[in-house]
Amino acid sequence: MLRYGMVGGDLQSFIGGVHRTALRMDPGVELVSGCFSRNAEKNLACGDMYGVSHDRLFTDWREMLKAEAAREDKIDFVAICTPNHLHYEVCREFLLAGINVVCEKPLCFEIAEAEELDRIARERDLVFGVLYTYVGYNMVKVMREMIARGDIGKIVAVHGRYAQNWLLDELSSDSNSNENVWRTKPEFSGISNAIGDIGTHLEYIIHYVTGLNIKRLCATVDCYGKKLDYNNSILVEYDNGVHGCYWVSQVAAGQINGLKFGIYGTEGSLEWEQHYPDYAVYTKRGQAPQTICRGAGYLNVNANANIRIPTGHPEGFYCAFANIYRNIVRTIEKKKKGQTPNANDLDFPTSEAGIEGVKFIHAVIESGKKDSQWVYMD
Amino acid sequence: MLRYGMVGGDLQSFIGGVHRTALRMDPGVELVSGCFSRNAEKNLACGDMYGVSHDRLFTDWREMLKAEAAREDKIDFVAICTPNHLHYEVCREFLLAGINVVCEKPLCFEIAEAEELDRIARERDLVFGVLYTYVGYNMVKVMREMIARGDIGKIVAVHGRYAQNWLLDELSSDSNSNENVWRTKPEFSGISNAIGDIGTHLEYIIHYVTGLNIKRLCATVDCYGKKLDYNNSILVEYDNGVHGCYWVSQVAAGQINGLKFGIYGTEGSLEWEQHYPDYAVYTKRGQAPQTICRGAGYLNVNANANIRIPTGHPEGFYCAFANIYRNIVRTIEKKKKGQTPNANDLDFPTSEAGIEGVKFIHAVIESGKKDSQWVYMD
Amino acid sequence: MLRYGMVGGDLQSFIGGVHRTALRMDPGVELVSGCFSRNAEKNLACGDMYGVSHDRLFTDWREMLKAEAAREDKIDFVAICTPNHLHYEVCREFLLAGINVVCEKPLCFEIAEAEELDRIARERDLVFGVLYTYVGYNMVKVMREMIARGDIGKIVAVHGRYAQNWLLDELSSDSNSNENVWRTKPEFSGISNAIGDIGTHLEYIIHYVTGLNIKRLCATVDCYGKKLDYNNSILVEYDNGVHGCYWVSQVAAGQINGLKFGIYGTEGSLEWEQHYPDYAVYTKRGQAPQTICRGAGYLNVNANANIRIPTGHPEGFYCAFANIYRNIVRTIEKKKKGQTPNANDLDFPTSEAGIEGVKFIHAVIESGKKDSQWVYMD
Amino acid sequence: MLRYGMVGGDLQSFIGGVHRTALRMDPGVELVSGCFSRNAEKNLACGDMYGVSHDRLFTDWREMLKAEAAREDKIDFVAICTPNHLHYEVCREFLLAGINVVCEKPLCFEIAEAEELDRIARERDLVFGVLYTYVGYNMVKVMREMIARGDIGKIVAVHGRYAQNWLLDELSSDSNSNENVWRTKPEFSGISNAIGDIGTHLEYIIHYVTGLNIKRLCATVDCYGKKLDYNNSILVEYDNGVHGCYWVSQVAAGQINGLKFGIYGTEGSLEWEQHYPDYAVYTKRGQAPQTICRGAGYLNVNANANIRIPTGHPEGFYCAFANIYRNIVRTIEKKKKGQTPNANDLDFPTSEAGIEGVKFIHAVIESGKKDSQWVYMD
Repeated sequence: MLRYGMVGGDLQSFIGGVHRTALRMDPGVELVSGCFSRNAEKNLACGDMYGVSHDRLFTDWREMLKAEAAREDKIDFVAICTPNHLHYEVCREFLLAGINVVCEKPLCFEIAEAEELDRIARERDLVFGVLYTYVGYNMVKVMREMIARGDIGKIVAVHGRYAQNWLLDELSSDSNSNENVWRTKPEFSGISNAIGDIGTHLEYIIHYVTGLNIKRLCATVDCYGKKLDYNNSILVEYDNGVHGCYWVSQVAAGQINGLKFGIYGTEGSLEWEQHYPDYAVYTKRGQAPQTICRGAGYLNVNANANIRIPTGHPEGFYCAFANIYRNIVRTIEKKKKGQTPNANDLDFPTSEAGIEGVKFIHAVIESGKKDSQWVYMD
Repeated sequence: MLRYGMVGGDLQSFIGGVHRTALRMDPGVELVSGCFSRNAEKNLACGDMYGVSHDRLFTDWREMLKAEAAREDKIDFVAICTPNHLHYEVCREFLLAGINVVCEKPLCFEIAEAEELDRIARERDLVFGVLYTYVGYNMVKVMREMIARGDIGKIVAVHGRYAQNWLLDELSSDSNSNENVWRTKPEFSGISNAIGDIGTHLEYIIHYVTGLNIKRLCATVDCYGKKLDYNNSILVEYDNGVHGCYWVSQVAAGQINGLKFGIYGTEGSLEWEQHYPDYAVYTKRGQAPQTICRGAGYLNVNANANIRIPTGHPEGFYCAFANIYRNIVRTIEKKKKGQTPNANDLDFPTSEAGIEGVKFIHAVIESGKKDSQWVYMD
Repeated sequence: MLRYGMVGGDLQSFIGGVHRTALRMDPGVELVSGCFSRNAEKNLACGDMYGVSHDRLFTDWREMLKAEAAREDKIDFVAICTPNHLHYEVCREFLLAGINVVCEKPLCFEIAEAEELDRIARERDLVFGVLYTYVGYNMVKVMREMIARGDIGKIVAVHGRYAQNWLLDELSSDSNSNENVWRTKPEFSGISNAIGDIGTHLEYIIHYVTGLNIKRLCATVDCYGKKLDYNNSILVEYDNGVHGCYWVSQVAAGQINGLKFGIYGTEGSLEWEQHYPDYAVYTKRGQAPQTICRGAGYLNVNANANIRIPTGHPEGFYCAFANIYRNIVRTIEKKKKGQTPNANDLDFPTSEAGIEGVKFIHAVIESGKKDSQWVYMD
Repeated sequence: MLRYGMVGGDLQSFIGGVHRTALRMDPGVELVSGCFSRNAEKNLACGDMYGVSHDRLFTDWREMLKAEAAREDKIDFVAICTPNHLHYEVCREFLLAGINVVCEKPLCFEIAEAEELDRIARERDLVFGVLYTYVGYNMVKVMREMIARGDIGKIVAVHGRYAQNWLLDELSSDSNSNENVWRTKPEFSGISNAIGDIGTHLEYIIHYVTGLNIKRLCATVDCYGKKLDYNNSILVEYDNGVHGCYWVSQVAAGQINGLKFGIYGTEGSLEWEQHYPDYAVYTKRGQAPQTICRGAGYLNVNANANIRIPTGHPEGFYCAFANIYRNIVRTIEKKKKGQTPNANDLDFPTSEAGIEGVKFIHAVIESGKKDSQWVYMD
């Protein structure tokens, strides 16, 4: 049984609840400590809901850290669900105290910060998970395995988009004063809104599935007179010289949560859409497109071992999240027991993904500022 | 905090795990007792995984019942996940002992048995949930609310199907001896395979969404030389004289879990498919079809209060299951506290649905035997 | 160069224009004679549009027939596009005069009439095409060829529907007096509206694709207080004992022209939808569904020889129509030259299909009248 | 009755046949002259098929032009279906001889040539149609009208792609010697393969629908070691400062003819896909996506006047083509009669579109050569 604590993520938070629920989907992990909110009442409400004992509830995360660090039965990891501007400091302090960390993305504001966090975790041999949710989907893992074993040959083109509609109303408003959307405000989100929030998901999932790394990119960045970006189009060049094309928007009417991409190779292609995560379209060169389904025997992949419910019943978002946590938890457990985690255990995004995400944000915003010139990721 | 026990559903069982996971998605319910398997080893493995104390683990469900019934801190309800042939007896005994019951469908073999179970539960004022999973989906609840408030006018036609492919291999085999598929065997499944397993889901979801009750039906029942049915086509007449048409098959290549239906009225229609449960197609008379999404503000429905994650992130099968359990648990909790459950709390299938399901099975199989004559449900 | 005449189908008629356009898509056929309307002005307008010389324009089809029959350069065939109630008489007279006939479906009102027409045509060795449009689609021909060569094994189930919304407004009206919809009136449509208009298409396309013949059927027939049927659900039994399930409706909101069916066999399935006619879904047992496309090399079918434009450009309704006419024309041409048409030339629906259609209409309506008893087609 | 001639497009040519068939779909236009091929046999075969008299068949287009120019009953227009490298010269000579011209796209190789052709046509008041097929689809016209009247508000983002798979095999081949694909060879195609062939379609259809003009663009151009481009990603900036993102590929496995785009505005969006041309997805801000259909009354557009068959029956590629020609023909007819064509008549792509297409090709290829720098279209 592992014990964890949480910083941020009270009952009003979307993502805090997802972390807790996902962690409950597999037995063996217990929420024992929390600083869910700086507001005492909200903090208590959340703690009580999950049965956290009152002596391990804190409205100041530094006190929580101090108390936990001092305990014999201290938490095995902390889940950080605060707004973006606090990620760096909270991660850093928990890591320095020797506690494994799971943090929401984007990891932090500055590349140097991300690299520092990564270095601290490595030096202390700590587990550092970063929650790029979508790579938890089984079909995403299937596609990765298929591409790695050569099912689509050598990659020749990539096309991806992450389009949402939820900030469209902002464009019809005269002000910069939407009080409810912290993501559009530099003080909470840093230099980017859309790229940080969803562009990084697109960047990481394509890296995860293909193994390709972006060498350089150029972009148009549309702020429509607001402070941060709402719509971005990006040309990317991977380290092997192949090109991709990404579109990231939060002002696209009709697109609820349209994360979608295709990977095209010399021998076939794979296409996937977040709205129907259990399926992908696989086309072999010269053949008809096939709608493949997670868990199906004909896939002949090791990734089928990850499925939770039989083929044909939608697994959904919580399963993706829980799949990432399952591996993080297995890794922490094994390390705790002095065992060596295997490749499957280690199949989760880490601070390395976090660094790439921050670099990607900076490169896109910089290219936008430089009239769409190429910006190198290194 | 409620406590529950489970009969059946060891770690090899699909549905047992789903019950446990769904019950863990909301805090406040604890698994404390179990007879997961008659095999001691399997039983122990499952109990240990979920932290059930060994003194509340039993390989004989009657002993479990005896022990629980005698405890001060006895279970608040039992979840029954055995094969179908045991449902009646296990339900009956737990009910007679005054314990609330949640049972898988189909409820039992005989109509008289189902009615007896229902009567016992009513007499003892016990909660009796029957797990018709699909009505837990938010969009199904949305459709029910839209139809009830008149969005599609007066219903004029219903079309539904539940088509799967998973027993197609049986037809190519010469024997009746598939050891692994208990559903195809009368001793475990009673008089029906496909209708009992999936036809009842179709029957119930249409009843749930429309409020229509089947008055009579006629059917073709295809066994292909095997003992039980694999493919059925059914004409139904509801009590208001409107007709529907159902197709239920487990030998339809390409159909993984194809539960799909349309409800057509004088002012519009609603169509839904299990593979994409967060969406439905709503057409107003004379207008373009709209792809509506659970949780969307434009729906203007109370059912939106049930959502767990924001629009655009797939909720999936576990959420549907957890939604049913959430209401069962709320109802048990309120009754335990002497409070009166409200209409939302009571929104879950009960023994009443169980009775209708058993009647439906009998009517279809009887019509098949009588060369597709009409058979009345009452 | 073949010459043809037309009865019915003036410029206001949907289907008349489709016949003329489809016949113009391949060179070699000329419209030279017509009785497009009994109204002189309308008749002239249509004739002038297509360059028919005035001496071959008639407002009485009997006069047209008399004049054509007397000419040396008489028409090679007549296309009959009148409302249903005139089909029998016009067909009969042209056939008796030794002129090849192409007629819209349903062929006529009575089975005996249809059989008489068929007999006359056979006795005189005349070509008699009946326009079941949908079997002109290339993918429909592909499916027929795939099924015939065993790609889906032995058929075990059939599921089809033809659902439209265009008469839904009728149900909200109190009267039987819609002046514009002749199809809903017995004097023009005979005993059936929906089954005659669209049910026959469903019946024929499934016969065409599978080769199965309906032995008997039982049906619910919904008139909603009007004179003729608007919504029908039908169980069919084919001559090999396999069952199918058809739904035919013209009051289904959201369904524009929803002709859709699936053929399920021991080794796979094929599913097709009229709205996307260039594609079908083909699933091999145990494999992923494939979206196959007309004209694709991987199909390895003779039917690919029929395509008119490369794969990926929608062929559409006119092509389907023109494909049927292409074969009718080739057959007439060959017979005129004393040659023997081959199997490809003869791939078009004839009076045989017409007879089956009329039998199907009678069987469905009779079953409806007999409280859904089985009615045999023979 | 109009008369036309054709240069190029023998019976082996895809596009020649499409021109002829599309022109036959509406009565009133006759093919009377042709130089279908330089090969006498092929030329004769094609002429005979369409009944062209032998004295108006030529194997040298200059002789055809000389002969036609000298006739009293000369052709009203010429349709030019040769490979790209001949467009300029043939267009030029026919225009100089005072004959209206319809030419395939891309119009020619050089911007100056395109501008010269445009100038000649204007000076002589000649009709000059350029066949951007896709804008002939009814839904494309509907979208244009909806956007023009403000249904989606002010445009904020554009996303488009045209992806095909048909040249994927080229990448697996070692040579540049594919004899059958003239499009990949500079001598026939000029500086571009994919952008010229399909990129121009994407560029034009978005201009047509939105009215937006590209001010500048930057692009990655992938030749994979071959002579011309096969895969391109393009960022565009329109003259109003809004950005778009285009992907153009002929090496995308699974994409048969994937022309697809979305136009996103402050009040809604419109999305369309070539494979399902009768439908588009229209979303109003804050509402559910609607699948709108050409011809539907609820659209309330003038464009509905263009439909050829009732809603629900696929119109397809030939109809799109015929719609463009219908307007070209109406314009030529009116001008011939001294009448003034109206806005509907003039709704077809002209040399102006041709110029923009050539500029687009040059800009993309130039940007590719300049390491993806912005290139201005003017």
